[in-house]
Amino acid sequence: MRERKLRVYVAGERVKDLYEHPNTRPVLNAIAKTYELALSPKHSAITTAKSHLTGETVSRFNHICFSTGDLVRRAELNALLSQRTGTCNYRCVGCDALTALYSITYEMDQRLGTDYHQRFLSFLKHVQAEDLACSGALTDPKGDRRKRPKEQADPDLYLHVVEKDDEGIVVRGCKVHQSGAFGVHEIIVLPGMALRPGEEEYAIAFAIPSDAEGLTFILQETAQDAERRAFGAERTGLPDYGVRTTCMLVFDDVFVPWERVFMCGEVEFTRELVMRFASMHRMSGAACKAGFGDVVIGAAYAIARYNGLEKAHYIRDRLTDMFYANEATRGLALAAAYKGRPTSSGAYVPDPVLANVAKLASVENFTRLLVAAADIAGGLVVTMPSEANLESPEVGEWVRKFLVGVPDVPVERRLRMFKFLQDWVAGPHLAGAIHGGGSPAAQRITLMALADWEAKERLAEELAGLGRKD
Amino acid sequence: MRERKLRVYVAGERVKDLYEHPNTRPVLNAIAKTYELALSPKHSAITTAKSHLTGETVSRFNHICFSTGDLVRRAELNALLSQRTGTCNYRCVGCDALTALYSITYEMDQRLGTDYHQRFLSFLKHVQAEDLACSGALTDPKGDRRKRPKEQADPDLYLHVVEKDDEGIVVRGCKVHQSGAFGVHEIIVLPGMALRPGEEEYAIAFAIPSDAEGLTFILQETAQDAERRAFGAERTGLPDYGVRTTCMLVFDDVFVPWERVFMCGEVEFTRELVMRFASMHRMSGAACKAGFGDVVIGAAYAIARYNGLEKAHYIRDRLTDMFYANEATRGLALAAAYKGRPTSSGAYVPDPVLANVAKLASVENFTRLLVAAADIAGGLVVTMPSEANLESPEVGEWVRKFLVGVPDVPVERRLRMFKFLQDWVAGPHLAGAIHGGGSPAAQRITLMALADWEAKERLAEELAGLGRKD
Amino acid sequence: MRERKLRVYVAGERVKDLYEHPNTRPVLNAIAKTYELALSPKHSAITTAKSHLTGETVSRFNHICFSTGDLVRRAELNALLSQRTGTCNYRCVGCDALTALYSITYEMDQRLGTDYHQRFLSFLKHVQAEDLACSGALTDPKGDRRKRPKEQADPDLYLHVVEKDDEGIVVRGCKVHQSGAFGVHEIIVLPGMALRPGEEEYAIAFAIPSDAEGLTFILQETAQDAERRAFGAERTGLPDYGVRTTCMLVFDDVFVPWERVFMCGEVEFTRELVMRFASMHRMSGAACKAGFGDVVIGAAYAIARYNGLEKAHYIRDRLTDMFYANEATRGLALAAAYKGRPTSSGAYVPDPVLANVAKLASVENFTRLLVAAADIAGGLVVTMPSEANLESPEVGEWVRKFLVGVPDVPVERRLRMFKFLQDWVAGPHLAGAIHGGGSPAAQRITLMALADWEAKERLAEELAGLGRKD
Amino acid sequence: MRERKLRVYVAGERVKDLYEHPNTRPVLNAIAKTYELALSPKHSAITTAKSHLTGETVSRFNHICFSTGDLVRRAELNALLSQRTGTCNYRCVGCDALTALYSITYEMDQRLGTDYHQRFLSFLKHVQAEDLACSGALTDPKGDRRKRPKEQADPDLYLHVVEKDDEGIVVRGCKVHQSGAFGVHEIIVLPGMALRPGEEEYAIAFAIPSDAEGLTFILQETAQDAERRAFGAERTGLPDYGVRTTCMLVFDDVFVPWERVFMCGEVEFTRELVMRFASMHRMSGAACKAGFGDVVIGAAYAIARYNGLEKAHYIRDRLTDMFYANEATRGLALAAAYKGRPTSSGAYVPDPVLANVAKLASVENFTRLLVAAADIAGGLVVTMPSEANLESPEVGEWVRKFLVGVPDVPVERRLRMFKFLQDWVAGPHLAGAIHGGGSPAAQRITLMALADWEAKERLAEELAGLGRKD
Repeated sequence: MRERKLRVYVAGERVKDLYEHPNTRPVLNAIAKTYELALSPKHSAITTAKSHLTGETVSRFNHICFSTGDLVRRAELNALLSQRTGTCNYRCVGCDALTALYSITYEMDQRLGTDYHQRFLSFLKHVQAEDLACSGALTDPKGDRRKRPKEQADPDLYLHVVEKDDEGIVVRGCKVHQSGAFGVHEIIVLPGMALRPGEEEYAIAFAIPSDAEGLTFILQETAQDAERRAFGAERTGLPDYGVRTTCMLVFDDVFVPWERVFMCGEVEFTRELVMRFASMHRMSGAACKAGFGDVVIGAAYAIARYNGLEKAHYIRDRLTDMFYANEATRGLALAAAYKGRPTSSGAYVPDPVLANVAKLASVENFTRLLVAAADIAGGLVVTMPSEANLESPEVGEWVRKFLVGVPDVPVERRLRMFKFLQDWVAGPHLAGAIHGGGSPAAQRITLMALADWEAKERLAEELAGLGRKD
Repeated sequence: MRERKLRVYVAGERVKDLYEHPNTRPVLNAIAKTYELALSPKHSAITTAKSHLTGETVSRFNHICFSTGDLVRRAELNALLSQRTGTCNYRCVGCDALTALYSITYEMDQRLGTDYHQRFLSFLKHVQAEDLACSGALTDPKGDRRKRPKEQADPDLYLHVVEKDDEGIVVRGCKVHQSGAFGVHEIIVLPGMALRPGEEEYAIAFAIPSDAEGLTFILQETAQDAERRAFGAERTGLPDYGVRTTCMLVFDDVFVPWERVFMCGEVEFTRELVMRFASMHRMSGAACKAGFGDVVIGAAYAIARYNGLEKAHYIRDRLTDMFYANEATRGLALAAAYKGRPTSSGAYVPDPVLANVAKLASVENFTRLLVAAADIAGGLVVTMPSEANLESPEVGEWVRKFLVGVPDVPVERRLRMFKFLQDWVAGPHLAGAIHGGGSPAAQRITLMALADWEAKERLAEELAGLGRKD
Repeated sequence: MRERKLRVYVAGERVKDLYEHPNTRPVLNAIAKTYELALSPKHSAITTAKSHLTGETVSRFNHICFSTGDLVRRAELNALLSQRTGTCNYRCVGCDALTALYSITYEMDQRLGTDYHQRFLSFLKHVQAEDLACSGALTDPKGDRRKRPKEQADPDLYLHVVEKDDEGIVVRGCKVHQSGAFGVHEIIVLPGMALRPGEEEYAIAFAIPSDAEGLTFILQETAQDAERRAFGAERTGLPDYGVRTTCMLVFDDVFVPWERVFMCGEVEFTRELVMRFASMHRMSGAACKAGFGDVVIGAAYAIARYNGLEKAHYIRDRLTDMFYANEATRGLALAAAYKGRPTSSGAYVPDPVLANVAKLASVENFTRLLVAAADIAGGLVVTMPSEANLESPEVGEWVRKFLVGVPDVPVERRLRMFKFLQDWVAGPHLAGAIHGGGSPAAQRITLMALADWEAKERLAEELAGLGRKD
Repeated sequence: MRERKLRVYVAGERVKDLYEHPNTRPVLNAIAKTYELALSPKHSAITTAKSHLTGETVSRFNHICFSTGDLVRRAELNALLSQRTGTCNYRCVGCDALTALYSITYEMDQRLGTDYHQRFLSFLKHVQAEDLACSGALTDPKGDRRKRPKEQADPDLYLHVVEKDDEGIVVRGCKVHQSGAFGVHEIIVLPGMALRPGEEEYAIAFAIPSDAEGLTFILQETAQDAERRAFGAERTGLPDYGVRTTCMLVFDDVFVPWERVFMCGEVEFTRELVMRFASMHRMSGAACKAGFGDVVIGAAYAIARYNGLEKAHYIRDRLTDMFYANEATRGLALAAAYKGRPTSSGAYVPDPVLANVAKLASVENFTRLLVAAADIAGGLVVTMPSEANLESPEVGEWVRKFLVGVPDVPVERRLRMFKFLQDWVAGPHLAGAIHGGGSPAAQRITLMALADWEAKERLAEELAGLGRKD
């Protein structure tokens, strides 16, 4: 990555060195952690897999699931990374996009006689062999939400093809909410929604290296990002990895050669492509929240201990509630994996009902868990003074004297843990959990479509004595 | 069953014929349904299993789980029966008791040199060979809840051994909340809680035929039971199967021969015996509620359709919420099964964390689902007049004229469906769901004990920069 | 009432004597209780008021509110009756209908030059002077919910005028969900929804004595109603007053003289008439649920005490949660009253926003409270055997021996309290709470219309630095 | 204020000029707003009152409530300020402390013959006459939460008297979670909990000017505070007023003359003093959250409009839910005020049950409202780039092009509104709402103590046929 020259902007300024800038460094650290854990014997059963293409050991982030066991470990991979980084792993969307493309390119070729699947396999082999990190990009800016892509005042509000020739295509537009795309080698781009005939120019899927000509990354700016940039990582709650960092990704007439184009105009496959990606990502997103939940519970428990309250009835009850809620999220993510089914390509996708249920439940459970954590911690989680005061000759001793909890826990430790928890209960994680993997309305619409209301009605009718028995 | 002469009482009167009495007949119908579905080719993969003892096809209710697949099908069995009977299957507790005894008798023999496991295997073979229906009995009346069994004013408030000789033991006491025990062949009795040294006389597990000398069954009495007894099955919401019917089961110095005694005095194994039963039963109880949920959703959808409202936004949103909540329950039950683990005997038990989570979640979800069902149905679900009015020459035509919904649905059908749903939203199901498998407090205490708080604390400490990295 | 000969049907049979029939007697008891409490010096500040027409002391149920204090006492009246009857007081809807008519007839006369208000005042004086009990009737059967009244296959699915002459009008149709209308002297009929031009025949309001020619009452039938009819009041949870009893009320070409007609065709006033009634009734309905909540909390506390558990942490926490939820309902009902405002007639109506909020909150809170009550009580709340067993020479002693709690509470008392609570946690109360005063969707639509979104937007814009400061 | 030389520290650095420092300036702005609105004819009925001591018009923040109308306006004052500043008004705790002291000093004098009330009246007159801003300080650091004040390793962990002579007392210790105490003229100090005999040195109440010798203020540091300090107010969501700013307030042997001491050793009055303060502050805190809710709803509605979605069913439903939740909070705060009662001094205090209920409900409702706001807004609420990018010649146009919503809303406006909402859904407000006015456990304990369980039990017993009728 070091030699890549990406166009990355933070608050209007171009980032000179991704490894040095306080807002980009944490993303690289988190991605580095995915490589580190892949080498850990303790974790390799989860972090790596055997490629079905080459039989080589590859990162599970670059592996296609060919069994429910694979799906389960895919979910566990996310939980593990969340536990060990406390932030996004930045490769999850990419992995889920690869999975969706695998089966859809296969089906397109079967139905249409295209060669997308072969192109995709070549690309996948390359990614596996080079152990590349991939991110994914789906959401278009969308402009006026009442309008279809072509009805927008500006047709670029959805990413689209503007030119096409023998060598490849040229695309223009933007993708938003992109988690850490500037820190990976490859970006997998999919359409963000089901498209209709007449919208062929928007039905595009492809892979692009992060340093491709014409790409620009413009980073998010939360208060946590600003804090880190201004006062350094050690002042933040999560020094190494930071809160999730996203960007908008501008495509200024970017050229993509045909061998990297995996869909181009096949609108009739977009719905299923998006659905499969969503099933994968809602499952993995829920597992991710369970990993986050583990660290939030740990932080709440630590503070309860530092306060001398870990045995108080009220606190124990709240902790148990957090544990319950978090395991419910984890259980649903795993259930979606265990109930996964093969596609015609042989690749497995999670159960779509449970994947959507897991996502919705993860939001409810994570909210409950964060509110309980704030409750357990006490007001200092937001009223604590800066740890910088500890070094002040004028006030350091007072902070040390007065912010002590139980005697055997140093004040530094207590303040650190409060600051760590502050990121969770007063930071962007909850809003991120709500919208990651698609907003709740999207899951509700999906569930409404997946429910077989008539079959249930028949069950009720039979029992009420109103129908045929079968 | 027909020749058995059980002592069964309803409202102070002895039941003459279990097949005729309106309060016992539905239990026999539901149990008969378990046999019917075992013969159905469409359902036999779920309803039957191959005995690990004989290789013969046996009812899955009499089968011990030896894989996670077995556990999954065990959960699905419950959901299926709930869908097809809309009430208790009455064999679920027995099945879960057999499972718990299988592994615990094995472990007792290993540790203590007893021969409980051999006795149990003989009994199990008999049950499988004869295709007997078993129920289970755990909960003692408990009297003053602040006191241990021996501290009670009356030592019989917990079932205990009062005599022991070469042939067997004599037990005295009572078990309450017994679902349908008068309708089965065999009753599997376990202690209802973890016991301590000094409480050996209460540490007993055994099997007893339902017509054993000294047993008396006294049935529950809800308003639904009274309604059925007074006005017949066709007036109730669920004509064939009724609401869940429980009884208290009095043991008036009942003799149990040693070959049917599977624990007698080994207090140190009671905690684990109860825990394993609870894990099984909380998993299967959650699956049961998902099956119930399917029929409640079906009934709500039917009524929405009869009202012309199935496409109204508010109604669709509520239906989707019901579906979401119900699939969350099902997903967690399945997750507990999929994450099951073998005991040293080879028999599998569900993941205890997820089994307890599934139970707690099933209560929250079922509540949410029932409230939504009542909301969708409208007030007629409780204000509807009796269907008997339809036959009145004086008012029948008015009921027919005024209680019509959309034109193509007969009033009888609409009233029937309202009455069916009334059982759910204005009957004993919710309270049953709350306490079935143990009251919520029991699950919370179990979860508190199962959580590894320190491991989570270490995760938080590492991320906050406070601990060893591993 | 005794001499009135009403046409009342239960399960297809005409009721011979309202004072004797087990399903009608409890309604008369509850109404009698409203008279009894009106005479109680302890309660008369709430149960009576000084008529603004005559200065005489009248029942508060027949009083028009002329201050926020009146509104507060109106709400407290409902809570008191709920505490003292544990069921509907059956005069609440009538009172709220009188209130709504008072101001709307005034406004019609002002705007249209009609004399509805004078007619209404005469009627009101009569009601006050004779101390009559009034009920109200609003909800039409509605048939196909997608269609307006005139679009229905049968125009009678909404109550309407079929004839009109110098003496009065003739009306045909039906009202459903009518609480106890056969037990009162007068029934106040209002339109059930806002009507539009062209629907004048449906825009009718009037008063009718319960024994008017052409009226027929057909009672609801819940399991609780059936139980009482079959086995007597003493077997039910609430011996004297029963669960809420409603009926459908058929108008078979009923003549109403002009002096009792308070609206006839003025569609443009129907929306406000319904809204005002709804504000009153949602306020009083919420207060009613708080009164119910008091008795449910009391029952749960009693059972906890009988079990020896009233000091257990888990139980105390649940009880506190019930108290919290219930006081939130009561507080919102009172807030709606305290924030009431005068209409141009001088009569006060509650704050419409808070009245609707109170109703919605009362459903959420009552659900929470009932689930907690079932949790505290334990499974016996639905698995308890009939109290009739206590008199059996064969099993009475066993029930007495085994269903004891703490030693000093007789088993009869414990069983009674369980049965009492069973009505609440396994009966029609929750569904009644959901739909009483209009289904939740109605409250949500009203709130959506009442919110001033733009004013709130301006507040946000100003703070964000985007707008004019004022 | 300008001439006062306070010792205020931020992140270890002393603040040179409170009017210039980015973290102290917003507090002064918010307090200035309280003065500005006091002069506004439109708002003066709420923001001012007539002094019962002098008859002069005074700030309502310095007024004692002598009627329920006063209490209502006190609650409305908080809602108004929350709407107009979007942050703490910083005078609320001081006002509620004055109220509590008024009646308790009166009662101490009555019972003990002391002259605290006279001293207090003199102080109050001074405050009213000079129109001073007061804050309040209650919460001690508490150290090991299992231990009483004197059992702590360091006795200073609770503020206490260390010296006493004819002129006054000397106090040592610290108060935490102090909202904006460095921005007011006077700080009213109360004990933070009920004290017991033997703990007299901790039973102190007094007033102290913010620039008293020996006082040091150490400010909180959230990410929002850091962001503002580093990049200026215009980069934050709430440019003028910021998020709530608290500090810890160190008392380094501070002298208080007797005329400013309002309690000194009277442990038996501490419980009631704290309870009365709590009732006031939980009522006003709930009203405050309703004001916040108004601006959050406004922001969510604005973004929905900017996205073209304000008429979408899902969005309207979520907005309605926010409105419902928020009005429930407001209604309960008002109910606590309306049900207020006089103390023996004549001063009114809110209903303690409803004040505690309002506080608990405000947390549940505010959580619900914030989650809905994040849902409505979409992911950009946390993934949006800095507005600084708009000025970049390199990327400004892209941000402008791609982050547009409906065509007629400028991108700047949309980004501003997102940033504004970010403060709420990803900032410290929710945790502040949880603990402001005391943590939820405190309210639950209070409610448990206030409930009359036995009275409710009697109601249930009477209805169940088990008790005396009254």
